Amino acid sequence: MSVADLFQAELKAVNLGLESFADNLRQRGVSVVQMDWRPPAGGNIAMIAALDRLALNPKIDIEAANAKAVQRMLKGKPMLVGVGIAKDVVPGMRPDLILHSGPPITWARMAGPMRGAVIGGLLYEGLAKTREEAEALAASGKITFEPCHHHGSVGPMAGIMTSKMPVWIFQNETYGNYSYATFNEGLGKVLRYGAFSAEVLDRLKWMETDLAPVMKKVLAAHGPVDMRGILAQVLQMGDEGHNRNRAGTSLMIREFAPYLVMLDEPKEKIAKILSFLHANDHFFLNLSMPACKCVVDAAAGIEGSTVITTMARNGTDFGIRLSGLGDQWFTGPAGIVEGLYLPGYTAADAAPDIGDSVITETAGIGGFAMAAAPAIVQFVGGVPQDAINFTKAMYEITLAESDFYKIPILDFRGTPTAIDVRLVVEKSILPVINTGIAHKEPGVGMVGAGLVKPPENCFQDALAAFAEEYTAT
Amino acid sequence: MSVADLFQAELKAVNLGLESFADNLRQRGVSVVQMDWRPPAGGNIAMIAALDRLALNPKIDIEAANAKAVQRMLKGKPMLVGVGIAKDVVPGMRPDLILHSGPPITWARMAGPMRGAVIGGLLYEGLAKTREEAEALAASGKITFEPCHHHGSVGPMAGIMTSKMPVWIFQNETYGNYSYATFNEGLGKVLRYGAFSAEVLDRLKWMETDLAPVMKKVLAAHGPVDMRGILAQVLQMGDEGHNRNRAGTSLMIREFAPYLVMLDEPKEKIAKILSFLHANDHFFLNLSMPACKCVVDAAAGIEGSTVITTMARNGTDFGIRLSGLGDQWFTGPAGIVEGLYLPGYTAADAAPDIGDSVITETAGIGGFAMAAAPAIVQFVGGVPQDAINFTKAMYEITLAESDFYKIPILDFRGTPTAIDVRLVVEKSILPVINTGIAHKEPGVGMVGAGLVKPPENCFQDALAAFAEEYTAT
Repeated sequence: MSVADLFQAELKAVNLGLESFADNLRQRGVSVVQMDWRPPAGGNIAMIAALDRLALNPKIDIEAANAKAVQRMLKGKPMLVGVGIAKDVVPGMRPDLILHSGPPITWARMAGPMRGAVIGGLLYEGLAKTREEAEALAASGKITFEPCHHHGSVGPMAGIMTSKMPVWIFQNETYGNYSYATFNEGLGKVLRYGAFSAEVLDRLKWMETDLAPVMKKVLAAHGPVDMRGILAQVLQMGDEGHNRNRAGTSLMIREFAPYLVMLDEPKEKIAKILSFLHANDHFFLNLSMPACKCVVDAAAGIEGSTVITTMARNGTDFGIRLSGLGDQWFTGPAGIVEGLYLPGYTAADAAPDIGDSVITETAGIGGFAMAAAPAIVQFVGGVPQDAINFTKAMYEITLAESDFYKIPILDFRGTPTAIDVRLVVEKSILPVINTGIAHKEPGVGMVGAGLVKPPENCFQDALAAFAEEYTAT
Repeated sequence: MSVADLFQAELKAVNLGLESFADNLRQRGVSVVQMDWRPPAGGNIAMIAALDRLALNPKIDIEAANAKAVQRMLKGKPMLVGVGIAKDVVPGMRPDLILHSGPPITWARMAGPMRGAVIGGLLYEGLAKTREEAEALAASGKITFEPCHHHGSVGPMAGIMTSKMPVWIFQNETYGNYSYATFNEGLGKVLRYGAFSAEVLDRLKWMETDLAPVMKKVLAAHGPVDMRGILAQVLQMGDEGHNRNRAGTSLMIREFAPYLVMLDEPKEKIAKILSFLHANDHFFLNLSMPACKCVVDAAAGIEGSTVITTMARNGTDFGIRLSGLGDQWFTGPAGIVEGLYLPGYTAADAAPDIGDSVITETAGIGGFAMAAAPAIVQFVGGVPQDAINFTKAMYEITLAESDFYKIPILDFRGTPTAIDVRLVVEKSILPVINTGIAHKEPGVGMVGAGLVKPPENCFQDALAAFAEEYTAT
């Protein structure tokens, strides 16, 4: 076709970018195809350069490294294997160490709910007798604060774990590594939301003296529980394994009940435990979290992999870690959750985003599997179609689909698994996280639930550091 | 616009009926709007006449009668109130009476699975010692066969109830009426699928001596269970209350477990019961069925109402009853179920459609709520979108939407409730039923599950009879 032909033939345009250009042409009767296109990395020159360097001049085969990380994430088989006391089983745990959710943080920078939970933890341990004593001790430098994630552990919301607390023990059957999490306390006034009243401490004590020892015996009688099988089922029962856990809790109760009955324990004690589980649909959260943790941990530390193996928040910072960059954290400010508030509370009461529960999204369930749990919008806000759209968007930033976790309404498509930080930055699509909302002051508790976006800079910073590390010189 | 204008202006057509007419016009460049239209009642002249007579010359205010029936169906509150022995609690029950599913039928016309279950029932009652004795007794005229539905009861598949069998007792709290159903035996070799081996009879005996008395005590301790609340929940957990009952069974276990533990019973007995419930996801079916039965029964017998208050099959005939025509049955041949077969079986092994479980669809759940249970297609065949489409189609033939049973994926729309026989006939849209498939021979059991269409003639016959009864002369 000559140039002359071009001006004689009917004009057919393909438009990239701003749709208003296409609209102008259409108004003049020109046939236009609008391409859904945005500039990579939102046009951020430094990020485009980093992506280019990694694409054109990598020091290592990134795709091969990611294939290995993906393989490890897809093949991980989380088994609930036992119950122990933190100081006996969690690596490095000791009485003057307090584990918390999210990336590392000092007492001085801790958000209200985390401070409240630390106070509660020190009271629970008997290291302080009053709130004031606990605050003084926490500020004294005599207590060490470290992330749960540094000790193979995860904790919802404040995520406080102290040495006497009982923990669930998980093992990744495929790769052998372990993970740990405390027991879920229920809703309302609970330590993980920063409450530390006598009611909270009494419950923690009962969990230590009654609930955990009984659960330990039940697990010994039952044998290890295949949590991958349970998680696969809950996704067919309206749960997503993070904020909707009614099916998961129900399945654990029916799994354990026949063994609970057979224990040599007073029946009042067993009945109280069954009533406690029945009254707390989030019982399952503290099982789905360590199940995810031991799976993603097996995909960590793979040289050259851009897969995100940690996302976590401490109420002040949101942080991520990449498989190929070891233990290095990349952080940004924790966001404010948009969602539904309990009666009497508003966004003005909310603490910023907090907790390790985003381990579920990191492993490909939770917010990433919201399409399996459309009823969750009653808890976190929005309409059912949003839940489907969130899941669909997450396929854009992940490298694989689960072989086990399937979403019926998406024709049993596997959940989006293994987030590639390059895709997050290139497409400017941030991971979807659904979460609870804590009151910003210590001692209050839960005020709502909703959806939150992580800060974009931590993904960009991680990509920049990765490009620095892995571009050939 | 003059006729001359018409032929000069651009032609714009609206096409009713056969779409090929529209296609022809489109091929000639004519703008066509295709209306989704079919002749009423598929063009059946007698049915159109019946519908017209009822519309133009009714003897009674049909809409007012239906409003009353709908109100009763929407306001019914099914409560599980107790456990009893059939002969003690089911109205009219006696040792020489056997209740069965579906419309009335004689021994001579019974399908294989129902004969098998009758044989099992007579062996269980001690009225016969061998299969041959049982068959001779069943054929002798000394045993009376009547539908469960004539005794306030419902039974899945063969639906056999004999005098010694334990039954769940339901009461419609709003209207006071009662309903009954036997206990679910689990899957595989079970009486309701026509099996009657020693294994089947031993299990029935254990249910009589152990399971039912314990459940009776549990209910006494727990108090009545609000089954409307439970059903509302299961629809948000991937169940539809007919063939997918994993959530329902789980919720009942967690509801009962704390009370089971506290009973003054050997713990081995309690553990065996909890294991039995855990191993049988259809435990809940025999609770959802009588829950639906006591609700639709309250809407029966309303003069002038075209609402369908019974659909049921005995393996030979499919039958319906209308609210405004009392106890009169309208029947047609039971269909063959299209679905998925267990390994080793094919459609050639299948008995025709059987069971009272279509009471769930009659009440607006089950197949009518399939959109809430997309994972069910793995059990009954098809793809998840089919499940959504089936539910949407049922809004076409129902008069109301449930205030309690909501479907998350349809933006929490209430389930389609109260089938109007006029709409079924006028639109030629038959109720969607999902169901299990029994082997056609006595003694074998379940061979699969799927979807089945009821025979259209019973709806047409019912409409004709209704028009006869309710047209003013």
